[in-house]
Amino acid sequence: MRMYDIILKKRANLPLSDKEIRFVIDGYVNGEIPDYQVSALLMTIVFNGMNARELGTLTLAMAQSGNMVDLSNIDGITVDKHSTGGVGDKTTLIIAPLVAACGGKVAKMSGRGLGHTGGTIDKMESIPNLKVSLEKDAFINQVNKIGLAVIGQSEGLAPADKKLYALRDVTGTVDSIPLIASSVMGKKLASGAQAILLDVKVGSGAFMKNIEDARELAKAMVEIGKENGRSVKAILTNMDRPLGHAIGNALEIREVIDTLKGHGPEDLTHECIIMAAHMLVLSHMCDYETALSRVQEALDSGAALERLRMMIDAQGGDSQVIDDESLLAIGKFTYEVTAPQDGYITHMNTEQCGIASVMLGAGRTVKDGPIDYGAGIVMHKTTGDAVSMGERIATLYASDESLFTNAAQTYLAAITTGNTAPKVVDTILDIVE
Amino acid sequence: MRMYDIILKKRANLPLSDKEIRFVIDGYVNGEIPDYQVSALLMTIVFNGMNARELGTLTLAMAQSGNMVDLSNIDGITVDKHSTGGVGDKTTLIIAPLVAACGGKVAKMSGRGLGHTGGTIDKMESIPNLKVSLEKDAFINQVNKIGLAVIGQSEGLAPADKKLYALRDVTGTVDSIPLIASSVMGKKLASGAQAILLDVKVGSGAFMKNIEDARELAKAMVEIGKENGRSVKAILTNMDRPLGHAIGNALEIREVIDTLKGHGPEDLTHECIIMAAHMLVLSHMCDYETALSRVQEALDSGAALERLRMMIDAQGGDSQVIDDESLLAIGKFTYEVTAPQDGYITHMNTEQCGIASVMLGAGRTVKDGPIDYGAGIVMHKTTGDAVSMGERIATLYASDESLFTNAAQTYLAAITTGNTAPKVVDTILDIVE
Repeated sequence: MRMYDIILKKRANLPLSDKEIRFVIDGYVNGEIPDYQVSALLMTIVFNGMNARELGTLTLAMAQSGNMVDLSNIDGITVDKHSTGGVGDKTTLIIAPLVAACGGKVAKMSGRGLGHTGGTIDKMESIPNLKVSLEKDAFINQVNKIGLAVIGQSEGLAPADKKLYALRDVTGTVDSIPLIASSVMGKKLASGAQAILLDVKVGSGAFMKNIEDARELAKAMVEIGKENGRSVKAILTNMDRPLGHAIGNALEIREVIDTLKGHGPEDLTHECIIMAAHMLVLSHMCDYETALSRVQEALDSGAALERLRMMIDAQGGDSQVIDDESLLAIGKFTYEVTAPQDGYITHMNTEQCGIASVMLGAGRTVKDGPIDYGAGIVMHKTTGDAVSMGERIATLYASDESLFTNAAQTYLAAITTGNTAPKVVDTILDIVE
Repeated sequence: MRMYDIILKKRANLPLSDKEIRFVIDGYVNGEIPDYQVSALLMTIVFNGMNARELGTLTLAMAQSGNMVDLSNIDGITVDKHSTGGVGDKTTLIIAPLVAACGGKVAKMSGRGLGHTGGTIDKMESIPNLKVSLEKDAFINQVNKIGLAVIGQSEGLAPADKKLYALRDVTGTVDSIPLIASSVMGKKLASGAQAILLDVKVGSGAFMKNIEDARELAKAMVEIGKENGRSVKAILTNMDRPLGHAIGNALEIREVIDTLKGHGPEDLTHECIIMAAHMLVLSHMCDYETALSRVQEALDSGAALERLRMMIDAQGGDSQVIDDESLLAIGKFTYEVTAPQDGYITHMNTEQCGIASVMLGAGRTVKDGPIDYGAGIVMHKTTGDAVSMGERIATLYASDESLFTNAAQTYLAAITTGNTAPKVVDTILDIVE
């Protein structure tokens, strides 16, 4: 078998065999196939795509290039959730407690912030003393005991994806539905959950800017999951405005707690209830209508909030933050952003809102750089809201006042105001299964 | 300027600017742009192509990556001829004397044999003592004096093409019309001739197997020439059977001499007259009808033969070969291939005929390997000819009798016989200008 022939075959738009796909992934990981041949093949995939069987095989090969997490010692069906990344997306920390409170098993590995999007692990670290790394047995025991554990994704997960992504990043092959789908799903397959809910974000703050691309990505990821015997569904959610009111790590934890106490932002609460219900269905626990009412009950009764507390305790964190938000180190300086004119907020460039938050210190500007957990933005107005000139539309938080000028300018530039109220877009845009 | 953005631009099917194209070629040659980015870009070109302006710029950039041969000290318009490679293609050594005898100026650099196709320089070296390398001044003086010089292509010609070709060869990007066209024309532009006749071979012995691809390649090469101010025309010729009767170096030289003496094979003679006439027209010497009669006169009068003699003398060779063919070291052993049945030769797999000749020793099996100048094949029957069972259809020549069995089998396997005479295909298939 020769890489050269494999490139020509894909260039001719013929499907690659499972053996050929494994030859490529194995050969690339062990250094036998050079970058320049792999980048040529990646570009043929950009143009000619891959069918469901090819994608399933590619993704499994990437997953199996490293450790496959074994969750078989967890009682019941393990269910995972993955978001393609957004601004203000703190859903994992609301949904996992909701699902666990309903009897689901969430053994989740999450990532850190990337570019303008936040990461669950960074958010968790703003809770004093919380550990985001657990030994395998402790991880599994915790899920068996309280129904949920959220830890950082291990370095050894899907090394082929890591190597391929680094190459894609410099060869103009990042932006390709099959390659994105296999990259995401490779890590999900390796993470071991039997059921997976995919949250594909759509809009100005998401990697997918339009619903057609998002739907195509969702279909590819669902197909990959099915090819590999996983129970998978994708939900397309609106990321044309930040989710909820808070952007930034500690600010988002405060919003998570508020939401689980029953007084969170409407869009965020709604989205979390729907996703948690789908996760119960994917876990074969009940039908969707029953799942919705069980999730609502877990929220209303405080059972979900109790699960969050149990998780923080189990992972060594200070669960007093739930009752005393002053224990969260929210940025000590604030700055009010006001509306420049009367009218309605007609659009928010959500990526720029995320960048404004990074400018305040809430995100990294270099890999492994420092992060200010207390920095960020609380939005008082969002797309569709009426505003009066001079009215406060957002509060910025930072531990260094000199950061406000540029961040406020960026945030204001991200907001379009007009005289007519815009059409309100649903939070949930579509479901792909 | 970043290579990454250039890849994405071409991937989006947008034309690259001249600056971007030069950035790629310069950066690749000087090692600043890595193979893996260039191979990704090459694959985007395979899929999205290039327009005439892009191709012209790319080709000139490749030519200018090394020495540009300066032929301005030659009196009159210099005219070059390039063949895409065939079997039995000894036309250069007939056409150059024909053109020179009519007053044209042929300052030509030729190549060596590659795979199943022969090379002019190898053929020339079968003439005792002939030099195929000349100092620049000697080269130019010879053309000024006798109208022709044929030497080996210098190593320093278009180094970007050499580096790109090596990468294409391992990344599945060889077989691409724009990349082939720019590779051929990069060397032609660097070789300095003002007028260029391109001989695009079509058929089973050629790189281009069908006329549509050949026409597309011809158009691309003509456009590149025009973009760079050269006078260019392409002629599509039949390579679905070997050209003339002889395949192999000394055997082909004997056929060159026979042809210039007026008793060469009809197809070869016809093709050479047409091409020489086009070269006179490209040199702005006269119209096509006049050119045809002048070339015919140069052949009939022996003036062209005289030019060949002058070239051999000027380049230090033994021009006595013209009068005494025994001075050519033709293979001392022969083997007769006979027709396996009565009927007509309906098709010849010309690539396999070339391979049979290589098996006899006439070509190289490894780069820079040895060559047996006396080895080869003389065909007595070709496509369209009637044959009787047991009749001699070809004579094989070698200096080692043990080579005959396999070569004869290969040659026979290349020939299809049938009961019906096939349609005779013209030697000249089309002209693109």
